[in-house]
Amino acid sequence: MDLTALRTANPEHWTKAAAIRALTLDAIHAANSGHSGMPMGMADVATVLYEKHLKFDASAPNWPDRDRFILSAGHGSMLLYSLLYLTGNPDITLEQIKNFRQMGALTAGHPENFLASGIETTTGPLGQGISNAVGFAMAEEVQRARYGKKVVDHYTYVIAGDGCLMEGVSQEAIGLAGRHELSKLIVLWDNNNITIDGTVDIADRTDQVARFKASGWQVIEIDGHNPAAIDAALTKAKSSNKPTMIACKTHIALGHAAQDTSKGHGALTDPDQLKAAKDAYGWDHGAFEVPADVLDAWRAIGARGSADRVEWEERFAQISERKQGEFRRAYAFEAPKKLSGAIRSLKKQVSEEQPKWATRKSSEEVLKVVNPIVTETVGGSADLTGSNNTKTDDMGIFLPENRKGRYIHWGIREHGMAAAMNGMALHGGIRPYGGTFMCFTDYARPAMRLAALMKIPTVFVMTHDSIGLGEDGPTHQPVEHLAISRATPNTYVFRPADTVETAEAWEIALSTKETPSVLSLTRQGLPTVRTQHKTKNLTAQGAYVLAEGEGKRQAILIATGSEVAIAMEAKAKLEAEGIGTRVVSMPCMELFAQQEEAYRKRVLPAGAVRVGIEAAVRDGGWDRWLLGERGREAKAGFIGMSSFGASAPADELYAKFGITAEATVAKVKDLLG
Amino acid sequence: MDLTALRTANPEHWTKAAAIRALTLDAIHAANSGHSGMPMGMADVATVLYEKHLKFDASAPNWPDRDRFILSAGHGSMLLYSLLYLTGNPDITLEQIKNFRQMGALTAGHPENFLASGIETTTGPLGQGISNAVGFAMAEEVQRARYGKKVVDHYTYVIAGDGCLMEGVSQEAIGLAGRHELSKLIVLWDNNNITIDGTVDIADRTDQVARFKASGWQVIEIDGHNPAAIDAALTKAKSSNKPTMIACKTHIALGHAAQDTSKGHGALTDPDQLKAAKDAYGWDHGAFEVPADVLDAWRAIGARGSADRVEWEERFAQISERKQGEFRRAYAFEAPKKLSGAIRSLKKQVSEEQPKWATRKSSEEVLKVVNPIVTETVGGSADLTGSNNTKTDDMGIFLPENRKGRYIHWGIREHGMAAAMNGMALHGGIRPYGGTFMCFTDYARPAMRLAALMKIPTVFVMTHDSIGLGEDGPTHQPVEHLAISRATPNTYVFRPADTVETAEAWEIALSTKETPSVLSLTRQGLPTVRTQHKTKNLTAQGAYVLAEGEGKRQAILIATGSEVAIAMEAKAKLEAEGIGTRVVSMPCMELFAQQEEAYRKRVLPAGAVRVGIEAAVRDGGWDRWLLGERGREAKAGFIGMSSFGASAPADELYAKFGITAEATVAKVKDLLG
Repeated sequence: MDLTALRTANPEHWTKAAAIRALTLDAIHAANSGHSGMPMGMADVATVLYEKHLKFDASAPNWPDRDRFILSAGHGSMLLYSLLYLTGNPDITLEQIKNFRQMGALTAGHPENFLASGIETTTGPLGQGISNAVGFAMAEEVQRARYGKKVVDHYTYVIAGDGCLMEGVSQEAIGLAGRHELSKLIVLWDNNNITIDGTVDIADRTDQVARFKASGWQVIEIDGHNPAAIDAALTKAKSSNKPTMIACKTHIALGHAAQDTSKGHGALTDPDQLKAAKDAYGWDHGAFEVPADVLDAWRAIGARGSADRVEWEERFAQISERKQGEFRRAYAFEAPKKLSGAIRSLKKQVSEEQPKWATRKSSEEVLKVVNPIVTETVGGSADLTGSNNTKTDDMGIFLPENRKGRYIHWGIREHGMAAAMNGMALHGGIRPYGGTFMCFTDYARPAMRLAALMKIPTVFVMTHDSIGLGEDGPTHQPVEHLAISRATPNTYVFRPADTVETAEAWEIALSTKETPSVLSLTRQGLPTVRTQHKTKNLTAQGAYVLAEGEGKRQAILIATGSEVAIAMEAKAKLEAEGIGTRVVSMPCMELFAQQEEAYRKRVLPAGAVRVGIEAAVRDGGWDRWLLGERGREAKAGFIGMSSFGASAPADELYAKFGITAEATVAKVKDLLG
Repeated sequence: MDLTALRTANPEHWTKAAAIRALTLDAIHAANSGHSGMPMGMADVATVLYEKHLKFDASAPNWPDRDRFILSAGHGSMLLYSLLYLTGNPDITLEQIKNFRQMGALTAGHPENFLASGIETTTGPLGQGISNAVGFAMAEEVQRARYGKKVVDHYTYVIAGDGCLMEGVSQEAIGLAGRHELSKLIVLWDNNNITIDGTVDIADRTDQVARFKASGWQVIEIDGHNPAAIDAALTKAKSSNKPTMIACKTHIALGHAAQDTSKGHGALTDPDQLKAAKDAYGWDHGAFEVPADVLDAWRAIGARGSADRVEWEERFAQISERKQGEFRRAYAFEAPKKLSGAIRSLKKQVSEEQPKWATRKSSEEVLKVVNPIVTETVGGSADLTGSNNTKTDDMGIFLPENRKGRYIHWGIREHGMAAAMNGMALHGGIRPYGGTFMCFTDYARPAMRLAALMKIPTVFVMTHDSIGLGEDGPTHQPVEHLAISRATPNTYVFRPADTVETAEAWEIALSTKETPSVLSLTRQGLPTVRTQHKTKNLTAQGAYVLAEGEGKRQAILIATGSEVAIAMEAKAKLEAEGIGTRVVSMPCMELFAQQEEAYRKRVLPAGAVRVGIEAAVRDGGWDRWLLGERGREAKAGFIGMSSFGASAPADELYAKFGITAEATVAKVKDLLG
């Protein structure tokens, strides 16, 4: 392709864009891995976006009212790193660019939000960024409604590729953005017609323009290498009352021998071809070298928003101190001071009243107390509001006509919900929670993993957490889902036994700053087991002695959630036979693992057989507590599931699968020989 | 709603449809749970479909050339059970209808394919059925191309609800069906505008007609209570050269007090309202009672296809005996006799040549041998063909112009691929396999679980299976994904150590009938560890002694996949220090668990410390083998991951995370004290 016409039409633009292309080629050459084609294809779009539209101040990358830029096509990470370095981001220095994809570098293979400022979200798994962006845009709406346009008024820009649009979750995102008229969400589609396996049409012939329009978007089609067209499209997008998709026709790996081919998608490292591409750009500089005038021009772009930001700070100072404090507190994921007192009061009340609630109902009762205090929560459900018990009356429904609404009807979109919740948490100022059936962890899973990796405190409210849901049968009965979430690093899995533990779990979930929480809640009613009020949050210890053995301790029963009551029943039977039995409630294995060893040994001392009870597979992290990490700690057994469930009333299922006090007693006696 | 006009316009139709509605009401009343609204709303559509279009013979529900009917909106299971009972399915008797959702009944809460004939797939998790259907329709095309229209020529019908269409996976299915011009796929959308949380538009305003058209579908809009319109639409759909979506405007819970409301979605059990609905239908019969004339009319529909079926059998008898045998063998999931010999030859060759291949490359070499023999395989990849090594030259690409093609470019659609592969396996005659990166197990997960629940042998080829993939970083590095698949009942997780074990794993995956397989394969090269040829498939034992200790056995190293070579290196170091060390390769924990206890004890005898080595979290089923099921079996330790990975070259990551021979040696010595 002869680039002369492009170069000469707008040389100043061209040189700035060429800097991105050259840095991309150099970094990937040095790393000998990476994805060259996308940054080279989208450099023009990104340059115009940063130069003329994106509201940001490189010296203050965390300015709350900045526009957000999300690289949904995360494999093109060198586009983002180039932009950050060129505009003067304090973290992404030239040294980082040179260390692209190397141990300890902030410039990881795919952008990781927790490594450097200016990286709004972690992308790479396709479709996530565009779905996060829905949450970013919703968060902006909610915050603007609360704090006013003078404090919150910014756009969310996304670069998405063909892969993002083929992933099913993108449809969930597109539907949500269209329904909620998220007019400040602007998606730039890198329409290059290339995927790894070939041209897009070997796998898809969807008319993307028609598809977005069908869900209520404005669509603008442009040549993605024409700066004036890019500028005009962005201007038009910003004034729409709908979300906008700008279809940018681009050439992947522009100017390289691999242009417009699948090969161009990956790492272009051949030195001669690299030089030829640079020649075509008119880029006559050494590796990683950006001439001073070009760098100055980019740094001026990075400083463009400084005045805006200073003015914003002045405006922010004018809102009430209470509002300022609330705003800052929410951004810092600090729980309000009143929270723990309110939780304590509720705990005291229910330990006295001892209701027999399903823990999903317990959770609703906690939310009734919590939501008026923790004003930054935004709740919702994937079309199971009445079953997940996630809505409280004070929240209001989030809709175009009610941007103050704090409850979102996500529709039948577990994955989109989870990804958008992540986006809200990443945006800042919002603590999102959302519900579905625990079995549909499967649908939400890609986003749940990313919440853990990204170190954000998204809360997943997972009800109907075992065969205890009964007749809906094995498609709806989780057996391996506790194991799935527990196997995931940096995830708190709470399985509370009653309302007291549910309140404690929520207190932790609403106070933590860098860890997502999964609340595993029952459909079926449970007795209150925490009948003695304790001020202290015992769930924060992960596990604790709920009931001490009466005689000589011969057995320890360890149980979670709905099975704690079974453990208590088994204990009574065992004690009646003279077998001293301790019951340990273990609502959060991860927090127990974080306790000092001395505490863990006090809770689980040697010298007694141990039986774990959980209506799920043993693989869910049990053996560490049953057998000890190095083994030989105790003789132990497990009462739980080793197959899928079945469709029948819940009580019959517990009997069928042998999750009963009787089976527990038999197991203990067997172990005691 | 006054149903008089509907009743009088076509009384014969009406009565047949009313039988479905009445049985639905009665069964849900008896069970006191279930979903009434959908069967009541879609009874007219289903009646016309079964009466006038669906090719089936109730007395031979497994006739290979029957039309397939898939209830994607699986919560409306009483629609399917009513149809099966009324038409005379041998399994779904009136007794089963009366036992709806009870222990042991074939009429589970959601339809389960393995319980009764006539249930083509397990549905309930929304979006799965419509995505399975893409695989059913592809399987029909592949088989028709191979066996000719006289043997294979049938349609795939789907009833899908708003939930199915909101789930992201539906977009993947729609895109695939449109691209591949699956003209024999006909989706009947139950357009009732109601979800559990309210009207559809609280969450979505997508123009579904425009959305389907954008992906190349024919769309027909009809009144779903008008039999003539339903009939005409189905006729038109059958003659299209595109897949067809028929948008059926219906009233959920037609004729009931809860009609057109969210309440109508669930269990309608109020006796007075039930009676009022039956009155409105003109249905004056006792609970579960279907008058003889109505039942006769339905049974005649069930017998309608008998002659067709007999003629088909005659046509089938005319194809060559070889073809007949192949057809039957593939339907029975029987591996061809030649397979094991071919695998043995390959094993012998590679144990001599000892290549240093990544196991993804090993897998490709196995497929080169296998695909010409196992002619029923259909392979593919979610846009990672060159990385997953899933394509062999003989397969041809499946496209409208090449229906004999056995390789599918699924696009960036892991979930849709997995669900469609399940559909192919369920259709019969096809053994599907498909690849993606192992980390994207997360995306495919809902369908992977269903493969296990449905007892079908879908093969998931998961490459890039650890931090060994290097620079792409933690978004792409699985650490918990072995644990996820191992925690799932009825799933074989193979993590082969070299080409020999890869060949053995494939042999099992291609021979098994009721269990899906996950092949966990490396990106990085590995040495051949099985250097002594054994005819026997050692992987079939799950674990075996790869190398015996030379001196007195003090340690057993248990490893999988890429870490077996590390175990061998550690063994050499330990033996050099006089510590007799056995190495156990454990390519499939599930198969090891199925061996007799005596074998397991021979492989893992007491009296030695044990160290497990796997570049993944310990939660992945390890403790059973390290510590013993009841504990106290051995002192043990684990070398693996306990956090997410990082972006850097693979060797550096193994060192950083301490997965090395040196660390293994240190752990053994520590345990030996």
